Amino acid sequence: MSIRIEDLSVDRVRTLIRKGEWTGPTVELARGFAQAGLAIVPERYALSFFTFCQRNPKPCSVLDVTEIGDPTPKLLAPRADVRTDLPKYRVFSHGKLVAEPTDIRSYWRDDSVAFLLGCSLTFETTLVTAGVPIRHLEEGKEPPIYVTNVPCTRAGPFGGPLVVSMRPIPHDMATKAVQITSRYPYTHGAPVHIGDPALIGIRDLGRPDFGQAVAVRPTDVPMFWACTVTPQAVAVEAKLELLITHAPNHMFITDRRHEDFTVA
Amino acid sequence: MSIRIEDLSVDRVRTLIRKGEWTGPTVELARGFAQAGLAIVPERYALSFFTFCQRNPKPCSVLDVTEIGDPTPKLLAPRADVRTDLPKYRVFSHGKLVAEPTDIRSYWRDDSVAFLLGCSLTFETTLVTAGVPIRHLEEGKEPPIYVTNVPCTRAGPFGGPLVVSMRPIPHDMATKAVQITSRYPYTHGAPVHIGDPALIGIRDLGRPDFGQAVAVRPTDVPMFWACTVTPQAVAVEAKLELLITHAPNHMFITDRRHEDFTVA
Repeated sequence: MSIRIEDLSVDRVRTLIRKGEWTGPTVELARGFAQAGLAIVPERYALSFFTFCQRNPKPCSVLDVTEIGDPTPKLLAPRADVRTDLPKYRVFSHGKLVAEPTDIRSYWRDDSVAFLLGCSLTFETTLVTAGVPIRHLEEGKEPPIYVTNVPCTRAGPFGGPLVVSMRPIPHDMATKAVQITSRYPYTHGAPVHIGDPALIGIRDLGRPDFGQAVAVRPTDVPMFWACTVTPQAVAVEAKLELLITHAPNHMFITDRRHEDFTVA
Repeated sequence: MSIRIEDLSVDRVRTLIRKGEWTGPTVELARGFAQAGLAIVPERYALSFFTFCQRNPKPCSVLDVTEIGDPTPKLLAPRADVRTDLPKYRVFSHGKLVAEPTDIRSYWRDDSVAFLLGCSLTFETTLVTAGVPIRHLEEGKEPPIYVTNVPCTRAGPFGGPLVVSMRPIPHDMATKAVQITSRYPYTHGAPVHIGDPALIGIRDLGRPDFGQAVAVRPTDVPMFWACTVTPQAVAVEAKLELLITHAPNHMFITDRRHEDFTVA
């Protein structure tokens, strides 16, 4: 009898990732547990980046911040290490992608500060449980992601447009989808826009900037949620000498259940 | 016909405060608009203080952070100045109270960073609107505040016990009080404790550490909310060379309505 990785505990999965034995996407792993995006910046930029996140809480929900030089995410997983416990990373130097390693111990510095950011997996899980269909999951695709014409509130060197993910929701479930995601303000919360994509500067839903297009049916309403790509994009654009992020879909698995992030 | 200060607009009230013509408490002013606590620290402590707040969001809900050296709270009131627009301040040097001025321009430094913190006025207003009695308001008192034995999660030099305010709520309104305050996670949110005060290290409700005791009736449930005194207390305890806070009950009046801070 074989054991599937999907059925392993958080600790077992994290050990496999740490050893480099799992370098794939995390979406199917440790079901029930929240996952988080990652952005590591040098300490001299940390206060500004933190402020950017505070000013733009829908795309940039900070779930944990590490102490300067300490790779332990104390709130989300006190036995974890952000340098080894994600399956794949992206390393940027002055805004250019320079490496996609599976371990960043050689890039970590005494002045590194890691931000762990809320991810839409948490509310998608709850939507599916409530019977709200998620088309990209049904179609086996990555969610379609779009750059809008809505500016984020700038902080220091960090600024740029809001980036959103889109989910076509059956019109008779749109209210329910707002209600459910409103309960998760720390993982993007309620939609930032409902309806006509042109009103937020999106010309063609069929041509997303990232991810893959999904079918929007005549009885669907396009609903847009703020996306964790936003803080990553503004951090890349700020051209810091060193920036480390998670690779897309290769997230940090936390010790916290999705329900830990509800407010009501 | 005289005009009462209670009826003035936010801008008019703020102008009176800025000119030093109002130096009293703010609770009755600019009804409908959120008020905020203040903590100003030198930039070298700002990242740690911000991290402390992130780790302890119930007592320390950051509503705005100013740029280094810039006294403008861009999110809450972009035409305001935190150096002049609170009626009274407290200035601490190495943990000792050294002044209670009505204007802090002479204490403001090029490296000052101001944090504006969510205050319970927002949820109290909504509780009263919903018919939930607030005993200390009925009795014309300041709310009773207690130091608990629950430790906050430390960050850098900042650490200490959770401080809470207590409101005796009629037992048949306790559920409603949880529901209403849950909608305001940015201004303390849902109660941190309901029931027996001894379970969080409070020996005698009749002897609060700050504020004034209120009557708890046999049909009341004591309900405890995290309190903005918490971040102020840990900041004082950290004995920074310079710390500036609002004086108790002399808050910053924002341009944002209470309802702007709901999540659902």
